[in-house]
Amino acid sequence: MKAAIIGGGVIGGGWASRFLLNGYDVKVYDPDKEAKRKLNAMLKNAKRSLPSLYDFALPEEGKLTFCSTIEETVQGVKWIQESVPERLDIKQNVYKQIQKFCDSDAIIASSTSGFKPSELNEGSNNPKQILVCHPFNPVYLLPLVEVVPSLLTDKNIISECCKFLKNIGMKPLLVRKEIDAHIADRLIEAIWREALWLVHDDIATTEEVDDAMKYAMGLRYALMGVFEHMRLAGGEQGMHHFLKQFGPCLKWPWTKLMDVPDLTDEFVTKIATQSDNQAKGRSIQELEISRDDTLVGILRALRATERAAGKTINEHNNDLNIDLGHDVELYLTVKRQIPQTWTDVNGHMNETNYLEVCSQATDKFMEMMGMDVDYIKTKQESYFTVETHIRHLNEAKEGMLIIAKTQVLEASGKKLRLFHKLETDNGTLIATGEHMLLHVSLKTRASCLPSKKIAENLDHLFKKHSKLSLPEGAGRSVGYKG
Amino acid sequence: MKAAIIGGGVIGGGWASRFLLNGYDVKVYDPDKEAKRKLNAMLKNAKRSLPSLYDFALPEEGKLTFCSTIEETVQGVKWIQESVPERLDIKQNVYKQIQKFCDSDAIIASSTSGFKPSELNEGSNNPKQILVCHPFNPVYLLPLVEVVPSLLTDKNIISECCKFLKNIGMKPLLVRKEIDAHIADRLIEAIWREALWLVHDDIATTEEVDDAMKYAMGLRYALMGVFEHMRLAGGEQGMHHFLKQFGPCLKWPWTKLMDVPDLTDEFVTKIATQSDNQAKGRSIQELEISRDDTLVGILRALRATERAAGKTINEHNNDLNIDLGHDVELYLTVKRQIPQTWTDVNGHMNETNYLEVCSQATDKFMEMMGMDVDYIKTKQESYFTVETHIRHLNEAKEGMLIIAKTQVLEASGKKLRLFHKLETDNGTLIATGEHMLLHVSLKTRASCLPSKKIAENLDHLFKKHSKLSLPEGAGRSVGYKG
Repeated sequence: MKAAIIGGGVIGGGWASRFLLNGYDVKVYDPDKEAKRKLNAMLKNAKRSLPSLYDFALPEEGKLTFCSTIEETVQGVKWIQESVPERLDIKQNVYKQIQKFCDSDAIIASSTSGFKPSELNEGSNNPKQILVCHPFNPVYLLPLVEVVPSLLTDKNIISECCKFLKNIGMKPLLVRKEIDAHIADRLIEAIWREALWLVHDDIATTEEVDDAMKYAMGLRYALMGVFEHMRLAGGEQGMHHFLKQFGPCLKWPWTKLMDVPDLTDEFVTKIATQSDNQAKGRSIQELEISRDDTLVGILRALRATERAAGKTINEHNNDLNIDLGHDVELYLTVKRQIPQTWTDVNGHMNETNYLEVCSQATDKFMEMMGMDVDYIKTKQESYFTVETHIRHLNEAKEGMLIIAKTQVLEASGKKLRLFHKLETDNGTLIATGEHMLLHVSLKTRASCLPSKKIAENLDHLFKKHSKLSLPEGAGRSVGYKG
Repeated sequence: MKAAIIGGGVIGGGWASRFLLNGYDVKVYDPDKEAKRKLNAMLKNAKRSLPSLYDFALPEEGKLTFCSTIEETVQGVKWIQESVPERLDIKQNVYKQIQKFCDSDAIIASSTSGFKPSELNEGSNNPKQILVCHPFNPVYLLPLVEVVPSLLTDKNIISECCKFLKNIGMKPLLVRKEIDAHIADRLIEAIWREALWLVHDDIATTEEVDDAMKYAMGLRYALMGVFEHMRLAGGEQGMHHFLKQFGPCLKWPWTKLMDVPDLTDEFVTKIATQSDNQAKGRSIQELEISRDDTLVGILRALRATERAAGKTINEHNNDLNIDLGHDVELYLTVKRQIPQTWTDVNGHMNETNYLEVCSQATDKFMEMMGMDVDYIKTKQESYFTVETHIRHLNEAKEGMLIIAKTQVLEASGKKLRLFHKLETDNGTLIATGEHMLLHVSLKTRASCLPSKKIAENLDHLFKKHSKLSLPEGAGRSVGYKG
């Protein structure tokens, strides 16, 4: 399993990283003196992220070699990926050199975003092995590859190529007809040119254009394409209805792109039929529910890195973090609806999320004791959970309101023992969580005493809670009543 | 807190849902006899999804009333949202009726995607209160609202409007200059028209166009806009370099949008300066890491619903689910790299993910015993975890390889007790997990005996494992040595 990379910049380096992490040995040719440094920096990024997509380990990493000639790079290699600058004469010249030394049945794939394969293979004496495999940055994370053969490309090369790309976790999209910029980049280019006009005409700044993209349609385009999303806009009546309704708008100046195809009956039927095939019989309602579940997942993912719409949700989330009051003697530390993203194959909240709710209850409790995220970041001190005991007592399901009540079982020195009861809003006990925590310095990663103020707050509450009876299930071990 | 909804279709119904779930009382006017049914269906979707975005409960739901006249709907209401069909004469006529009965300082916001506010307010005797608030479907989930005032709109109305939208969790984008279709829809429209050409010219089917969108750029657009993403494409040299390098391509036929602005030095500097401001001093490297962390989160979210790129990752993930072999007597049940998305404020793997790894170990163990996801779905039988004990022994950090080894402590009748050891690849013990599971019918949700084959497999392994010594920490309760 060997791959050759000709041109190791942003795109070539991304290819190299994806190959290496999928167990391929990779040889790289790039005359740029900085190539090695840049590629290793990219590989470092890739190692952080590509394995994170999976629940299982990737194969053992391949070997990376930098070569000083094209000859050495391509000899005996099955996959040769060309990612040199976007100039046709440079590319054609590179193919001549490659083809002097490579196997005649090796795949020569070009990363070109603009050129057609029939332009790339001009003057080649073996055009059968040349085709376009156009990836997207970052190549080590984004799955799409536009596979564009010329009329001269060997059929076996095409099918081997697609199989190969699937093996390294990618999504080959076979482009059946050559066109400048293939498919995806035509869409990107249309947006880009329209965006340039908006900034040019002072309608919006680059930031405003970007916000307009990422807070709405960007979220949808991660899960639905152009047509799928128009299909939903048509509501219950579907694509045919949508096209009839919005057809006239194509003549309106809603973009600078005023040269539009005529929506003849034939063309409308063509789109509607293809769109129906794509929906595979799922109703608008089913598509809506799947869309919403996915949007919830994406928006929650964006929250974690505070990017784009994640920021907006986090701000609103902070507004919702109110004092929940208490129930007789115990503070309420969680009140939330169970998200659909927490449902597993058994049709209820996954066991992991029981601990997620307990963890949230602990965080809220610590916040009430004066140790919120700001405190942790500034003071560089926190509590680490060292032991956890959960009893899963009733099934929790999506949409249920879940409430946590927290009792302090022990608070002395570095130690803190908490007991959370998770209930539904009608008082059914769902689970209990018992947790031992240790106060820790985030600098030394060793345990240490909490600050006086935190210790006092905990002690005060512990004195109150120690008068309560020990909750049922506390101190228990797995499988033993007691 | 009251809102009036004039026109309760896909957009108006989305507004109504967002208002209600944020605690507003909502009055709806829509002459469509199906309006009530459609709106309630949408509200049901919204109730599943909007609360799922947050870790805290939303305010108590507001009251929904359907009114038979505009008069009744708008009286005494501060926010009036118009979402009637996209015809200027209809909209202008509706404003006349609204303004007969509403407060003179109420906000009249139009959901129009195409018209300018100066067109909407023509003929109005109080244009001060009219502006565009253009949302995106599904309104209850997507945060963007384009706020477009006319020159006559009152400044207080504009600022109140933005504040109000933030209160219901939305992202107001103030559009400073009127233009047909505002900002976001111009970008959408450019893509749409280009996409129509691709289908029209038989370059691609609707499905292929959609794939080209959602497997690459759609993922990026959820977190980066048009310019942010071109900035990264420029690599270490930034936006100015990118524009100089790709400037000539604007003249190439990469889209049907051939009427492009000239990239004069002045225009290039304008874009580069705005883009620099947007980056707020973050280096390309920082932006790349944040981008990758977010893409990992988005792709993992897509895996959960098997949408778009999530399907590709899942297929590759299944290929990686190999037999991990065993370590002396115990099966290996997990081998994975810890994703960066699992890191919490304490700078290590969140406690929740310890249980996630244990849960994965249990799933893999059950799969080896013959109970994989297909079995569970077909047979409608599974094991539910009823009790869990975790000892967090060492810090697990992103990028570490984590391995689980599983021992059967008990397997009789409906009961199964498992013990997982989580280790790094150099043998450091990270955590242990002890779990009691019960065999359950997914139909009755009650416990029952496993099938003969599963019971035999478990019994066979238990007999082997019962000869091993009890692992250190088994049978322990929180905080007690023993």
